[in-house]
Amino acid sequence: MNLDFLFYPRSVAVIGASNVPGKVGNAIMRSITLKYRGRVYAVNVKGGEIEVNGKKFKVYRSILEVPDDVDVAVIAVPAKFVPDVVDECGQKGVKGAIVISAGFKEAGRADLEEELVKRARKWGIRLVGPNCLGVTNLENGFDCNFNPPERQARPKFGGIAFMSQSGAFGAAILDWAARHEVGMSKFISLGNMADLDESDFMSYLRDDPKTKVITAYLEGVKDGRKFFNIAKETTKVKPVIILKAGRTEAGAKAAVSHTGSLAGSYAIYQAAFEQTGVLGAKSMRQLFNYAKALAMQKPAKGDRVAIVTNGGGVGVMMSDGLLERGLKLAQLSD
Amino acid sequence: MNLDFLFYPRSVAVIGASNVPGKVGNAIMRSITLKYRGRVYAVNVKGGEIEVNGKKFKVYRSILEVPDDVDVAVIAVPAKFVPDVVDECGQKGVKGAIVISAGFKEAGRADLEEELVKRARKWGIRLVGPNCLGVTNLENGFDCNFNPPERQARPKFGGIAFMSQSGAFGAAILDWAARHEVGMSKFISLGNMADLDESDFMSYLRDDPKTKVITAYLEGVKDGRKFFNIAKETTKVKPVIILKAGRTEAGAKAAVSHTGSLAGSYAIYQAAFEQTGVLGAKSMRQLFNYAKALAMQKPAKGDRVAIVTNGGGVGVMMSDGLLERGLKLAQLSD
Repeated sequence: MNLDFLFYPRSVAVIGASNVPGKVGNAIMRSITLKYRGRVYAVNVKGGEIEVNGKKFKVYRSILEVPDDVDVAVIAVPAKFVPDVVDECGQKGVKGAIVISAGFKEAGRADLEEELVKRARKWGIRLVGPNCLGVTNLENGFDCNFNPPERQARPKFGGIAFMSQSGAFGAAILDWAARHEVGMSKFISLGNMADLDESDFMSYLRDDPKTKVITAYLEGVKDGRKFFNIAKETTKVKPVIILKAGRTEAGAKAAVSHTGSLAGSYAIYQAAFEQTGVLGAKSMRQLFNYAKALAMQKPAKGDRVAIVTNGGGVGVMMSDGLLERGLKLAQLSD
Repeated sequence: MNLDFLFYPRSVAVIGASNVPGKVGNAIMRSITLKYRGRVYAVNVKGGEIEVNGKKFKVYRSILEVPDDVDVAVIAVPAKFVPDVVDECGQKGVKGAIVISAGFKEAGRADLEEELVKRARKWGIRLVGPNCLGVTNLENGFDCNFNPPERQARPKFGGIAFMSQSGAFGAAILDWAARHEVGMSKFISLGNMADLDESDFMSYLRDDPKTKVITAYLEGVKDGRKFFNIAKETTKVKPVIILKAGRTEAGAKAAVSHTGSLAGSYAIYQAAFEQTGVLGAKSMRQLFNYAKALAMQKPAKGDRVAIVTNGGGVGVMMSDGLLERGLKLAQLSD
């Protein structure tokens, strides 16, 4: 699945763009105008002009007024207006819409979410979200994350792609990666996955030459059979590491109240991971330690490891650690 | 066992004190003159005068020349001279000797180590080491650690005592605690444990009012029965957390070549820990997370935990983490 139009748009419209600090539509404008070199158009029914990062933007009252093609719309208006905005995007020929707005299925409005998907389908628009943090391409600076840069660090460009069903967790990961100088290719906040889901993005990232390792935080997959098939194909090409939350009964209950995901039995996920070659991680640290190792070096040819150390205690600890994880100490020849 | 004379000496002689940067006897002088307010005497057969931390010290050719009582001697002269130096310490009335010098049992000179212990016993001197990093009391700045302060951070004063059979591991722990602002009471590098061993210090720390939690890195205990009895008494008074290295066959082999410890079967240690109430940690991080939690709050009354969070994903992850570790989510009343 080619979703390049979502990550490498030539032009973007921010619908709900705002001048008011603290507003989501202001934060998105600030994120997107920082490094991205494509054309950015501000849209807000109020019209007028706004200034962001020292640059002035004319505000169009509707995307239909924008005097140019628009590849992607980032939508941050109240939920009830989103379906109509998507219709306008369709008339304008927009290919992808990233719906930041919340107030859909997760807030008991499954009907509004169905309507949103119906309108998008009518125009052939692919949706990210709704109820998501946005999408960040670390390669070209296309970044509609509504946490502005002074509140949310961005990692450098590198080989690890990350998708997250939790916005707060995704934000924590971006901070972590930046602090540890771990390079990321693309970050996707999945939100409610009304249209594009974790499997669609996995399929895209499989063919993305900038991504070496695919990582994800998931509470539940949308379509088990689809996930199984795509994961199986993807792990043949590059490693996939998934932190599956909602493993225990209490965790699964918490997941329902969070993203409405039916977590299902973790044993089923474990079996699916094993059969498809997905690596399961149990903590954020493990997820990214796996990812770092796999992004930085080729898979080992066997299970034998040699330890080089200047500290005796560290050598003992490392020997224990390796054996306890099923590896072997290499026998060195004389 | 009262070892206060080792941690709160009124006067100290550094035998092997040196003016030459990079020499162990220079590093010790620099560590010890930084915060410690007791009297410090420099001893070196070369005599003369040295300057450390901007202060001048007359160098006595022998501890017998020091015109004052000496409580503790820190010895950093070549191994072969150490037994004679201990004899002089005995004549001087020294109570404790911290032998930094290496070149004893760990280097195949069990005979020299036996001689050292024989001499110390004759005079009633208690020994730390040999082949150790020194002792640090974070309360009064008595610090004969031979990693000088610019190469080795010191944590602030607090409730966690730590003893280590590995110098490099001990140094890493001090750095870690300083960086994470974890407070320590006393740090002991155990070295070869020719005289005082892990059980003696555990017994001392049990009665030390400044220590809330006792932690240790051990490759093997010196006397199993003694350890068992003292650990059982100690855990009634305060928590004891031990990172036992050499758990696997490969780890045990590495331990033999490191400190000569016979690691024995880990199953036996596990059983001993369980029967004595010692908490076993499997990594440095776990060791200190346990210690931090136990130093900062009283033991919980039960296994029920409530989670307060502003992030849905974090709530799911925490629920999983708690249940996977055998805890329960509290049922809140309405």
